[in-house]
Amino acid sequence: MASTPTPLPLALSACCSPVTGGELSEEAAATLARVFKALGDPTRVRLVSLIAASPDAEACICDLTAPVGLAQPTVSHHMKLLADAGLVTRTQRGRWAYYRIVPEALAAAARALAPVEIATSA
Amino acid sequence: MASTPTPLPLALSACCSPVTGGELSEEAAATLARVFKALGDPTRVRLVSLIAASPDAEACICDLTAPVGLAQPTVSHHMKLLADAGLVTRTQRGRWAYYRIVPEALAAAARALAPVEIATSA
Repeated sequence: MASTPTPLPLALSACCSPVTGGELSEEAAATLARVFKALGDPTRVRLVSLIAASPDAEACICDLTAPVGLAQPTVSHHMKLLADAGLVTRTQRGRWAYYRIVPEALAAAARALAPVEIATSA
Repeated sequence: MASTPTPLPLALSACCSPVTGGELSEEAAATLARVFKALGDPTRVRLVSLIAASPDAEACICDLTAPVGLAQPTVSHHMKLLADAGLVTRTQRGRWAYYRIVPEALAAAARALAPVEIATSA
Protein backbone atom coordinates (compact mmCIF):
# COMPACT_ATOMS: atom_id res chain seq x y z
CA MET A 1 0.00 0.00 0.00
CA ALA A 2 1.50 3.27 -1.14
CA SER A 3 0.49 6.32 0.81
CA THR A 4 -0.33 9.52 -0.96
CA PRO A 5 2.64 11.79 -1.42
CA THR A 6 0.36 14.77 -1.78
CA PRO A 7 1.09 17.95 0.14
CA LEU A 8 -2.34 17.90 1.75
CA PRO A 9 -4.24 19.00 3.68
CA LEU A 10 -4.74 22.53 2.67
CA ALA A 11 -4.32 25.75 4.51
CA LEU A 12 -7.80 25.53 5.97
CA SER A 13 -6.56 24.73 9.43
CA ALA A 14 -4.37 27.82 9.24
CA CYS A 15 -7.29 29.85 8.09
CA CYS A 16 -9.51 29.73 11.13
CA SER A 17 -11.06 33.14 10.61
CA PRO A 18 -14.78 32.52 10.85
CA VAL A 19 -16.99 33.97 8.16
CA THR A 20 -19.22 35.41 10.85
CA GLY A 21 -16.47 36.69 13.14
CA GLY A 22 -15.55 39.84 11.27
CA GLU A 23 -14.26 40.92 7.92
CA LEU A 24 -12.13 38.23 6.31
CA SER A 25 -8.88 38.86 4.51
CA GLU A 26 -8.89 38.19 0.79
CA GLU A 27 -6.60 35.25 1.31
CA ALA A 28 -8.75 33.62 3.97
CA ALA A 29 -11.84 34.19 1.83
CA ALA A 30 -10.13 32.57 -1.15
CA THR A 31 -9.15 29.51 0.86
CA LEU A 32 -12.64 29.06 2.23
CA ALA A 33 -14.24 29.66 -1.16
CA ARG A 34 -12.07 26.91 -2.64
CA VAL A 35 -13.44 24.42 -0.13
CA PHE A 36 -17.04 25.52 -0.58
CA LYS A 37 -16.68 25.45 -4.35
CA ALA A 38 -15.47 21.85 -4.14
CA LEU A 39 -18.63 21.07 -2.17
CA GLY A 40 -20.83 23.10 -4.48
CA ASP A 41 -21.87 20.17 -6.62
CA PRO A 42 -24.51 17.55 -5.74
CA THR A 43 -22.37 14.64 -6.91
CA ARG A 44 -19.42 15.74 -4.82
CA VAL A 45 -21.62 16.24 -1.77
CA ARG A 46 -22.90 12.68 -2.26
CA LEU A 47 -19.39 11.30 -2.73
CA VAL A 48 -18.28 12.92 0.52
CA SER A 49 -21.29 11.48 2.32
CA LEU A 50 -20.72 8.02 0.82
CA ILE A 51 -17.09 8.00 1.92
CA ALA A 52 -17.95 9.39 5.35
CA ALA A 53 -20.49 6.60 5.78
CA SER A 54 -17.93 3.90 4.91
CA PRO A 55 -15.90 2.00 7.51
CA ASP A 56 -13.03 4.19 8.73
CA ALA A 57 -14.43 6.98 6.54
CA GLU A 58 -12.53 5.44 3.64
CA ALA A 59 -13.81 4.07 0.34
CA CYS A 60 -12.44 2.47 -2.82
CA ILE A 61 -13.30 4.32 -5.98
CA CYS A 62 -14.57 0.97 -7.23
CA ASP A 63 -17.40 1.26 -4.68
CA LEU A 64 -18.29 4.86 -5.47
CA THR A 65 -19.21 4.71 -9.14
CA ALA A 66 -22.41 2.66 -8.84
CA PRO A 67 -24.11 4.75 -6.11
CA VAL A 68 -23.66 8.00 -8.03
CA GLY A 69 -24.33 6.35 -11.41
CA LEU A 70 -21.27 7.79 -13.11
CA ALA A 71 -18.29 6.33 -14.96
CA GLN A 72 -15.03 5.99 -13.12
CA PRO A 73 -13.18 8.77 -14.98
CA THR A 74 -15.94 11.19 -14.03
CA VAL A 75 -15.87 10.10 -10.40
CA SER A 76 -12.07 10.36 -10.42
CA HIS A 77 -12.36 13.92 -11.64
CA HIS A 78 -14.77 14.82 -8.84
CA MET A 79 -12.50 13.12 -6.32
CA LYS A 80 -9.51 15.10 -7.56
CA LEU A 81 -11.36 18.36 -6.93
CA LEU A 82 -12.23 17.22 -3.42
CA ALA A 83 -8.62 16.16 -2.81
CA ASP A 84 -7.26 19.44 -4.17
CA ALA A 85 -9.47 21.28 -1.69
CA GLY A 86 -8.09 19.15 1.14
CA LEU A 87 -11.36 17.43 1.94
CA VAL A 88 -10.12 13.91 1.19
CA THR A 89 -6.79 12.15 0.89
CA ARG A 90 -5.97 9.53 -1.72
CA THR A 91 -4.10 6.25 -1.32
CA GLN A 92 -3.28 3.89 -4.18
CA ARG A 93 -3.54 0.17 -3.31
CA GLY A 94 -2.73 -2.00 -6.26
CA ARG A 95 -5.21 -1.24 -8.95
CA TRP A 96 -7.55 0.96 -6.96
CA ALA A 97 -7.50 4.40 -5.42
CA TYR A 98 -8.93 4.73 -1.93
CA TYR A 99 -10.20 8.00 -0.56
CA ARG A 100 -10.45 8.99 3.06
CA ILE A 101 -12.28 11.94 4.59
CA VAL A 102 -10.16 14.63 6.28
CA PRO A 103 -12.46 15.37 9.22
CA GLU A 104 -10.38 18.39 10.26
CA ALA A 105 -11.05 20.05 6.92
CA LEU A 106 -14.79 19.54 7.24
CA ALA A 107 -14.69 20.77 10.83
CA ALA A 108 -12.69 23.87 9.87
CA ALA A 109 -15.20 24.72 7.15
CA ALA A 110 -18.02 24.18 9.63
CA ARG A 111 -16.32 26.44 12.17
CA ALA A 112 -16.01 29.17 9.56
CA LEU A 113 -19.78 29.06 9.08
CA ALA A 114 -20.95 28.88 12.67
CA PRO A 115 -18.08 29.63 15.03
CA VAL A 116 -20.16 30.52 18.03
CA GLU A 117 -22.23 27.40 17.98
CA ILE A 118 -19.16 25.24 17.54
CA ALA A 119 -17.07 27.13 20.03
CA THR A 120 -19.35 25.89 22.78
CA SER A 121 -18.56 22.26 21.98
CA ALA A 122 -15.37 20.26 22.57
CA MET B 1 -39.46 50.09 5.24
CA ALA B 2 -40.75 47.32 3.06
CA SER B 3 -39.90 43.82 4.14
CA THR B 4 -38.84 41.27 1.61
CA PRO B 5 -41.72 39.25 0.25
CA THR B 6 -39.36 36.45 -0.76
CA PRO B 7 -40.22 32.88 0.16
CA LEU B 8 -36.96 32.45 1.99
CA PRO B 9 -35.22 30.83 3.66
CA LEU B 10 -34.62 27.73 1.72
CA ALA B 11 -35.19 24.13 2.50
CA LEU B 12 -31.91 23.88 4.33
CA SER B 13 -33.51 23.67 7.72
CA ALA B 14 -35.62 20.81 6.42
CA CYS B 15 -32.55 19.13 5.05
CA CYS B 16 -30.68 18.34 8.22
CA SER B 17 -29.05 15.20 6.91
CA PRO B 18 -25.39 15.65 7.71
CA VAL B 19 -22.85 15.00 4.96
CA THR B 20 -20.92 12.79 7.33
CA GLY B 21 -23.88 10.99 8.85
CA GLY B 22 -24.56 8.52 6.06
CA GLU B 23 -25.43 8.48 2.42
CA LEU B 24 -27.42 11.55 1.45
CA SER B 25 -30.44 11.52 -0.81
CA GLU B 26 -30.03 13.23 -4.16
CA GLU B 27 -32.42 15.95 -3.05
CA ALA B 28 -30.60 16.69 0.18
CA ALA B 29 -27.28 16.71 -1.69
CA ALA B 30 -28.67 19.16 -4.23
CA THR B 31 -29.92 21.52 -1.53
CA LEU B 32 -26.60 21.49 0.29
CA ALA B 33 -24.63 21.87 -2.94
CA ARG B 34 -26.65 24.97 -3.77
CA VAL B 35 -25.63 26.59 -0.50
CA PHE B 36 -21.99 25.61 -0.85
CA LYS B 37 -21.93 26.77 -4.45
CA ALA B 38 -23.21 30.18 -3.34
CA LEU B 39 -20.31 30.30 -0.87
CA GLY B 40 -17.82 28.99 -3.43
CA ASP B 41 -16.60 32.41 -4.48
CA PRO B 42 -14.12 34.61 -2.58
CA THR B 43 -16.17 37.78 -3.08
CA ARG B 44 -19.32 36.16 -1.73
CA VAL B 45 -17.45 34.75 1.25
CA ARG B 46 -16.19 38.28 1.97
CA LEU B 47 -19.65 39.79 1.55
CA VAL B 48 -21.09 37.32 4.04
CA SER B 49 -18.33 38.13 6.49
CA LEU B 50 -18.79 41.88 6.01
CA ILE B 51 -22.51 41.63 6.67
CA ALA B 52 -22.02 39.31 9.62
CA ALA B 53 -19.59 41.82 11.11
CA SER B 54 -22.08 44.68 10.77
CA PRO B 55 -24.42 45.79 13.59
CA ASP B 56 -27.37 43.37 13.81
CA ALA B 57 -25.69 41.32 11.06
CA GLU B 58 -27.27 43.66 8.53
CA ALA B 59 -25.66 45.92 5.92
CA CYS B 60 -26.70 48.37 3.24
CA ILE B 61 -25.46 47.52 -0.21
CA CYS B 62 -24.11 51.06 -0.27
CA ASP B 63 -21.59 50.01 2.38
CA LEU B 64 -20.56 46.77 0.67
CA THR B 65 -19.23 47.97 -2.65
CA ALA B 66 -16.11 49.79 -1.41
CA PRO B 67 -14.70 46.97 0.75
CA VAL B 68 -14.88 44.43 -2.06
CA GLY B 69 -13.88 46.96 -4.71
CA LEU B 70 -16.69 46.16 -7.11
CA ALA B 71 -19.48 48.13 -8.76
CA GLN B 72 -22.93 47.99 -7.26
CA PRO B 73 -24.52 45.88 -10.04
CA THR B 74 -21.84 43.26 -9.55
CA VAL B 75 -22.33 43.25 -5.80
CA SER B 76 -26.10 43.05 -6.30
CA HIS B 77 -25.60 39.99 -8.48
CA HIS B 78 -23.50 38.29 -5.82
CA MET B 79 -26.07 39.21 -3.18
CA LYS B 80 -28.86 37.72 -5.27
CA LEU B 81 -27.03 34.40 -5.41
CA LEU B 82 -26.59 34.45 -1.64
CA ALA B 83 -30.26 35.35 -1.15
CA ASP B 84 -31.41 32.62 -3.56
CA ALA B 85 -29.44 30.12 -1.50
CA GLY B 86 -31.17 31.34 1.66
CA LEU B 87 -28.03 32.70 3.28
CA VAL B 88 -29.25 36.31 3.47
CA THR B 89 -32.57 38.13 3.33
CA ARG B 90 -33.12 41.42 1.53
CA THR B 91 -35.09 44.46 2.65
CA GLN B 92 -35.61 47.58 0.54
CA ARG B 93 -35.55 50.86 2.48
CA GLY B 94 -36.04 53.83 0.23
CA ARG B 95 -33.26 53.84 -2.29
CA TRP B 96 -31.14 51.11 -0.79
CA ALA B 97 -31.29 47.38 -0.34
CA TYR B 98 -30.25 46.01 3.04
CA TYR B 99 -29.08 42.47 3.54
CA ARG B 100 -29.23 40.46 6.72
CA ILE B 101 -27.53 37.17 7.51
CA VAL B 102 -29.77 34.13 8.10
CA PRO B 103 -27.80 32.52 10.92
CA GLU B 104 -29.93 29.37 10.82
CA ALA B 105 -28.86 28.76 7.22
CA LEU B 106 -25.18 29.08 8.08
CA ALA B 107 -25.68 26.86 11.12
CA ALA B 108 -27.50 24.23 9.08
CA ALA B 109 -24.68 24.15 6.54
CA ALA B 110 -22.17 23.90 9.36
CA ARG B 111 -24.10 21.01 10.92
CA ALA B 112 -24.07 19.20 7.61
CA LEU B 113 -20.27 19.37 7.59
CA ALA B 114 -19.51 18.50 11.19
CA PRO B 115 -22.61 17.09 12.86
CA VAL B 116 -20.85 15.28 15.66
CA GLU B 117 -18.85 18.25 16.80
CA ILE B 118 -21.88 20.51 16.67
CA ALA B 119 -24.23 17.98 18.21
CA THR B 120 -22.30 18.30 21.46
CA SER B 121 -23.08 22.00 21.70
CA ALA B 122 -26.34 23.81 22.45
